[in-house]
Amino acid sequence: MNKIKVIVAGARGRMGSEAVRMIEKTDNLELVACLENKYDGKKINEFDAEIDTEAIIYTDIDTCFKNVKADVLVDLTIPEVGYLHTKTAINYGIRPVVGTTGFTEDQLTELTDLAEEKGIGVIIAPNFAIGAVLMMQFSKWAAKYFPDVEIIEKHHDQKLDAPSGTAVKTASLIKEVREQKTQGHPDEKETIPGARGSDVDGMRIHSVRLPGLVAHQEVIFGSTGENLTIKHDSFHRQSFMTGVKLAVEQVMKIDVLVYGLENILE
Amino acid sequence: MNKIKVIVAGARGRMGSEAVRMIEKTDNLELVACLENKYDGKKINEFDAEIDTEAIIYTDIDTCFKNVKADVLVDLTIPEVGYLHTKTAINYGIRPVVGTTGFTEDQLTELTDLAEEKGIGVIIAPNFAIGAVLMMQFSKWAAKYFPDVEIIEKHHDQKLDAPSGTAVKTASLIKEVREQKTQGHPDEKETIPGARGSDVDGMRIHSVRLPGLVAHQEVIFGSTGENLTIKHDSFHRQSFMTGVKLAVEQVMKIDVLVYGLENILE
Amino acid sequence: MNKIKVIVAGARGRMGSEAVRMIEKTDNLELVACLENKYDGKKINEFDAEIDTEAIIYTDIDTCFKNVKADVLVDLTIPEVGYLHTKTAINYGIRPVVGTTGFTEDQLTELTDLAEEKGIGVIIAPNFAIGAVLMMQFSKWAAKYFPDVEIIEKHHDQKLDAPSGTAVKTASLIKEVREQKTQGHPDEKETIPGARGSDVDGMRIHSVRLPGLVAHQEVIFGSTGENLTIKHDSFHRQSFMTGVKLAVEQVMKIDVLVYGLENILE
Amino acid sequence: MNKIKVIVAGARGRMGSEAVRMIEKTDNLELVACLENKYDGKKINEFDAEIDTEAIIYTDIDTCFKNVKADVLVDLTIPEVGYLHTKTAINYGIRPVVGTTGFTEDQLTELTDLAEEKGIGVIIAPNFAIGAVLMMQFSKWAAKYFPDVEIIEKHHDQKLDAPSGTAVKTASLIKEVREQKTQGHPDEKETIPGARGSDVDGMRIHSVRLPGLVAHQEVIFGSTGENLTIKHDSFHRQSFMTGVKLAVEQVMKIDVLVYGLENILE
Repeated sequence: MNKIKVIVAGARGRMGSEAVRMIEKTDNLELVACLENKYDGKKINEFDAEIDTEAIIYTDIDTCFKNVKADVLVDLTIPEVGYLHTKTAINYGIRPVVGTTGFTEDQLTELTDLAEEKGIGVIIAPNFAIGAVLMMQFSKWAAKYFPDVEIIEKHHDQKLDAPSGTAVKTASLIKEVREQKTQGHPDEKETIPGARGSDVDGMRIHSVRLPGLVAHQEVIFGSTGENLTIKHDSFHRQSFMTGVKLAVEQVMKIDVLVYGLENILE
Repeated sequence: MNKIKVIVAGARGRMGSEAVRMIEKTDNLELVACLENKYDGKKINEFDAEIDTEAIIYTDIDTCFKNVKADVLVDLTIPEVGYLHTKTAINYGIRPVVGTTGFTEDQLTELTDLAEEKGIGVIIAPNFAIGAVLMMQFSKWAAKYFPDVEIIEKHHDQKLDAPSGTAVKTASLIKEVREQKTQGHPDEKETIPGARGSDVDGMRIHSVRLPGLVAHQEVIFGSTGENLTIKHDSFHRQSFMTGVKLAVEQVMKIDVLVYGLENILE
Repeated sequence: MNKIKVIVAGARGRMGSEAVRMIEKTDNLELVACLENKYDGKKINEFDAEIDTEAIIYTDIDTCFKNVKADVLVDLTIPEVGYLHTKTAINYGIRPVVGTTGFTEDQLTELTDLAEEKGIGVIIAPNFAIGAVLMMQFSKWAAKYFPDVEIIEKHHDQKLDAPSGTAVKTASLIKEVREQKTQGHPDEKETIPGARGSDVDGMRIHSVRLPGLVAHQEVIFGSTGENLTIKHDSFHRQSFMTGVKLAVEQVMKIDVLVYGLENILE
Repeated sequence: MNKIKVIVAGARGRMGSEAVRMIEKTDNLELVACLENKYDGKKINEFDAEIDTEAIIYTDIDTCFKNVKADVLVDLTIPEVGYLHTKTAINYGIRPVVGTTGFTEDQLTELTDLAEEKGIGVIIAPNFAIGAVLMMQFSKWAAKYFPDVEIIEKHHDQKLDAPSGTAVKTASLIKEVREQKTQGHPDEKETIPGARGSDVDGMRIHSVRLPGLVAHQEVIFGSTGENLTIKHDSFHRQSFMTGVKLAVEQVMKIDVLVYGLENILE
């Protein structure tokens, strides 16, 4: 088996370090270099006692891509840096897998055109948690048949915003297919304000915040005599790595830019 | 074994008919008469094909209590009627088990005094669902150690008020023992109003309404690294009968008035 | 709007009577006749105080189909009768919607050919609970990405067999796509036999039986740092009617035989 | 406010280091020294970048207790060491809080007598997770009224034994009060062996093992028309610290040995 040779950009960050560990544990993947903004020439295992890999850190992308034979760039940096990395990688024939919500429409259009011109696979995903992405896809599907739906999302009590981005995204996907309706009894009354949660297009989202929780969401569909519930529990940010691994494997098989993990989950 | 002889008032109603069926299925209980506002002298099984008992319907309480030797009166009528029934039963030495939230403070005081004077056990309960009563007691206990708590209650979408009476009652019991605090991050923001639910003394109650649901509540306590959840699901109004049966058995063992099922659950 | 004219076979049965009520409540459906084994010429509302419809009962299928102009036959009888009804209906140009698991392979082949020859839509479904069918489809999809899966099914304690047919069917659908593996630690030990449940191809199914429960199943997928759960709660047999209604609407749009509700859920 | 002065034994271990962090974050507690088997004279913050406390490590218990004025010894070492620490602490008038399941009956008797003689509070607990302890107490209470109960415990798939110790302990507490019965239908059949889980005195325990899970248990009570569920989720071993903190505060108020956290939870 030929291993897929991977460069990780942002390898010392929270997500990047998980990516490095995942690659080390995965038989068909091999870490061949890291891209960082400092520590040029050092080995990545000097920064993480849990890994063995002696991959070298580069701070200059051209030097890196010229010296190292790689198949895929996993970019877990910030949007501005990620955009330049992605463009450069495509030009070098290295397939980018990028985790970001921050690219502009213009940047996405440009990268899509460039990928097509070069015939190079690219995957850009705002969310690498396969479980969360499937939860949203299943919810969208179920909503065609069950227009009555409420979302309960639960997070630790240090979270500032309510409802969560994932809950709003889920409601917005459901809205695309759901027969519009205002749920609950037409005459229902809140004897204490807020009891019925937040209203998104007639659906209700409830946000629970408690210490001990991590990130959890359940989407509940109600119909005569039955309920269907899709629930996702994220206990640890390692959960993103199943999706990164899948994207690295899939980006080798495509020759265009794909946006969103849902589009590589058949 | 001497069976406990029971008269049911309101036997043709929704709760009363369940009580009659429960008594018929219970070895140590025996239905000896029914009290109704009409159909004097008819047999109760003429009104319910599912029961065999040939207990006679009385419309006059004195006639009933004089003619029928009974131990317990189970009253599942309306408050005004129930109050008179209870008083009369105590005077006849028949122990009342009454399901109502509607007695006034004055009525309760009067009945308490009368029960004590006569040395007759009386049980009056706003809620006969043992599961719901235990949920509230456990929640009150847990709140001493876990001041962070949120309540999610779920009901069918024909329910008019939110939050439910049980949720408000639970919060009020918790409030008695909980170290007062406002939950969630001090800077948390609702990007859509109502997301964080209704606020009761710093706790949050969320009300879900969906077709298919019956009556469900979970009380979630959060603490560092852990969650404790007490959940009650009521699938059918038959659930009240376990509590009625227990009350009938317990009322034989006491000689005062007890208010609330929680006070007979050691 | 032209209403879809429906004949119900087995209208006095448990499922059939729910179908009649559903049709009465649905704007675009109209009950035009019933097919029974007796009570020829009576009206169906003589047998169910909750319905108004004065549809006539027929005991002879040819008489019924000749006299009544109908679009769809909803058949909720037993397999032997259902087979003959289905065949006859196709020949009369009436589209059958049949709830059964009991047709033989030969019968299905014959009916498929007949439907194609006549260009008549037919829907035959072993399970009309859309929620349960979606649960199975979602589980099959998720299993491609999450090979670690356990099923917990919960039913009332009068159920005789464990695991449930739905749980076994779900496992069998998952097996079609799941990378085969034996779950749990290779050295795991049951200190009490049965703790790890029943083993289906390395997956585990656990069967809970308790009073109060109706019919519930959750399929739990585990992966690094996350869990994805698909849960279906059936609280009442009315839950089948959402699927019957959908099938009646869809059978008007097709001209072949479709087996399984999942094949009309896009 | 006088802070409670605490010595931690086993401060560099997994549990001990959490205890040190908890004490640092708690206003009314102060870490005054650590007891270890090496690194005599070093400061504990040299071993944990996340803490500031400059408490000194001692390797000799007598030197430590003579030099440092302390109220409480939190012992999170191994049973043999813990036993000697506990005995010595009582003799020095320092109140021990010990997390262990490993003391023998003889050791417990000896320590109980010594504590009583000296009038010194001691708390020894096999489990410091308040949530888990309450779950067991609530289950024991509920079982008096709901003899039908099943336990589902869920852990990560690296766990070797099934069912878990907590599940077996819970069943054994329930057994003390539950009316003995064999659950499920008398004629129920496992079409796949193990489906109905492991049998403890007629109750059933089901063990789920999946990647991503940490340590979870739910105890489900079923009765006519209702279910009551007590659920504990442990997401992180920090969950034990709420109980350690409570024990440190309570041990100051008692003058005997208390075994089991449940006995300080009124």
